[in-house]
Amino acid sequence: MPISPLAPAQFPDMPPIEGVKFATAAAGIRYRDRKDVLLALFNEGTTVAGVFTRSKCPSAPVDWCRAHLKGGSAATLVVNSGNANAFTGKHGREATRMTAQLVAAAVGCRTSEVFLASTGVIGEPLDASKFGEVIDQLVEGAAPAQWEQAASAIMTTDTFPKGAAAIARLGSTPVTICGIAKGAGMIAPDMATMLSFVFTDAPISKRLLQNVLSQGVIDTFNAVTVDGDTSTSDTLLAFATGAAAARGARKIANLSDPRLPALRKAFQAVLGNLAEQVARDGEGARKLIEIIVEGAVSKSSARKVALSIANSPLVKTAIAGEDANWGRVVMAVGKAGEPADRDRISIWFGGIRVAHKGEREPSYDESAVSAAMKKPEILLKVALGLGRGRDRVLTCDLTKEYVAINGDYRS
Amino acid sequence: MPISPLAPAQFPDMPPIEGVKFATAAAGIRYRDRKDVLLALFNEGTTVAGVFTRSKCPSAPVDWCRAHLKGGSAATLVVNSGNANAFTGKHGREATRMTAQLVAAAVGCRTSEVFLASTGVIGEPLDASKFGEVIDQLVEGAAPAQWEQAASAIMTTDTFPKGAAAIARLGSTPVTICGIAKGAGMIAPDMATMLSFVFTDAPISKRLLQNVLSQGVIDTFNAVTVDGDTSTSDTLLAFATGAAAARGARKIANLSDPRLPALRKAFQAVLGNLAEQVARDGEGARKLIEIIVEGAVSKSSARKVALSIANSPLVKTAIAGEDANWGRVVMAVGKAGEPADRDRISIWFGGIRVAHKGEREPSYDESAVSAAMKKPEILLKVALGLGRGRDRVLTCDLTKEYVAINGDYRS
Repeated sequence: MPISPLAPAQFPDMPPIEGVKFATAAAGIRYRDRKDVLLALFNEGTTVAGVFTRSKCPSAPVDWCRAHLKGGSAATLVVNSGNANAFTGKHGREATRMTAQLVAAAVGCRTSEVFLASTGVIGEPLDASKFGEVIDQLVEGAAPAQWEQAASAIMTTDTFPKGAAAIARLGSTPVTICGIAKGAGMIAPDMATMLSFVFTDAPISKRLLQNVLSQGVIDTFNAVTVDGDTSTSDTLLAFATGAAAARGARKIANLSDPRLPALRKAFQAVLGNLAEQVARDGEGARKLIEIIVEGAVSKSSARKVALSIANSPLVKTAIAGEDANWGRVVMAVGKAGEPADRDRISIWFGGIRVAHKGEREPSYDESAVSAAMKKPEILLKVALGLGRGRDRVLTCDLTKEYVAINGDYRS
Repeated sequence: MPISPLAPAQFPDMPPIEGVKFATAAAGIRYRDRKDVLLALFNEGTTVAGVFTRSKCPSAPVDWCRAHLKGGSAATLVVNSGNANAFTGKHGREATRMTAQLVAAAVGCRTSEVFLASTGVIGEPLDASKFGEVIDQLVEGAAPAQWEQAASAIMTTDTFPKGAAAIARLGSTPVTICGIAKGAGMIAPDMATMLSFVFTDAPISKRLLQNVLSQGVIDTFNAVTVDGDTSTSDTLLAFATGAAAARGARKIANLSDPRLPALRKAFQAVLGNLAEQVARDGEGARKLIEIIVEGAVSKSSARKVALSIANSPLVKTAIAGEDANWGRVVMAVGKAGEPADRDRISIWFGGIRVAHKGEREPSYDESAVSAAMKKPEILLKVALGLGRGRDRVLTCDLTKEYVAINGDYRS
């Protein structure tokens, strides 16, 4: 699979996080000759928060993490690619339990402090003993800041590893936030899945870490769509080692802590960067599409309209064909079910207004619009003219390669 | 565009409807060298009912029909292909009014008895004078039972004309129901649109005709999806001439009329047949997919789950690839937001159970499943195991041709 033309030029420079060590191994879960297991080890006192798929059919590891998040304390994270351990019934639950036991024994922690995520084929039993074969080597080899290797080990059909970093100041103490993600990749015969893990040395209570994470996804991971299909495995976990406390940062344990906004902003930057990379690696993507809806009756109404546009196959194929087809945008606005007045709608492609108040823009520069549509990044703005609600969603185009990736693997 | 491999072998034999005459003409609205206007003339006393797109951005003719449906009386129907007269602002409203005036003058009826529908490119002004050039010739040439010509004149990128007929007995008097439809076709740079017109000689009040139509669409046109995108132009109109009254059928004016169920059933058959043809002519379709969801908590819950499966790009591409990818079906069930218990779900492809109670079916005949997936018609059944709610939805697969039809027209 060639690297997405929308990929960043290179994997970013990412500093180590005090209190986090990584190791990767080839456990042969599905792939040959590649790393398919990631181990992260955390120092004592690491807090954890998580956000998961809202699917009614979540994978066994999602159930596991949800159940153990209540404790709020993490010693280790184990992620495998190649098998999602989803729709595997009691065998799947058994596999997560066995994996956690194996890992807990090797690391020397409680099973409730082991967090798990799996991505890959679904409906296939996951052989937990595979972890047993590599766990000692992983624990022994763990070292700081193996970011690119870590991000690569969790890939399935991603075409590039995804990482992002930001620095925040807690008073005078700098803390670091680093994250990795895997995006919309497909493994025959499986679906797109999204996993992301974010790490920080900031000292913060599990309650506030959860607050930062839950608030942080709203305009980042929850504002990205590739094909409107929701994975059974979507998992975003945040781990805070608190190591910066030794450098003078008191623990953040109060929602009114004046240092919280800076941390929140840095978190948001990392999540937003990773989410954008997921859209940039959408299956078959050739265009990154940023959709801004303004003038809606509320932000949530703007979000629904933006998602209706972002998930419309007709809008996505038009952009793949480099056509500023605003008629399809009108269609997608109309079907969203949100307040809209046909005769007030205006639409811009690449900053050029193509429709105004319910009619074609009488005279716009067609050559300028055509030039804008040829770019790899397309800005599509819709003004509904009703209120002050505004929102932004990222997506990618729908190409023949998407169909090939998801339909041709057997032929 | 080659004819869909899912097309019926031939256009059906359809009898004339007493009191309905048709004519078609080439008005040059957009296409060259083809008929693009359909006129239907009705005898006096014809009642009319309609169901329209729920888009917040409907086309001007949809607004026109909605406004004049209240009168309940129809003298004529004029349909053009090539221009949808949608998102055309006050010019669009003006064009419908002028068209209705031209037609009313030529036919000798009130403008409120003229029904209009347009399909094709959106955002382009529709030149109403084009109708003026052909209207006299149309009125003069109108003749009974030009079904295939009528169905062909309203096509855009449909690959075959769509018609269906049924006979009902009102007491001892046979009445006929005939319908035509255009399906999910795309005209550069436009979206899929659906138009359908049904005609009967049954004598029935406008109120009960509306009841039969509104009930009839629930499990027919409203249970079909090609790509989840809703047109601004979707229009279904039913016209009842009442001509069968002369053959002894009293007018149906009461919901408790014992003859109503037979008429309803025949109507339903025609609507169902046309709706299936729309799915069979879905853009780029190679497989007709029938999705049955049972064991849901209610019929409406089953419908939502079935539509989530039917609109999932990952399910549709898997079926295009002839893969019984039940993992993606689980995904689509999970994202529907309806009650579902992962560990009770069973899934069948082509009548063969591939997953049972939340796990892969331990031993199924893979070669039998592969053979079933190669067929042009795929039955996909999901049992949720929760209640007695059951529903059925039709769709088609998602192929590279869909992307080509909707994305390649400029390249």
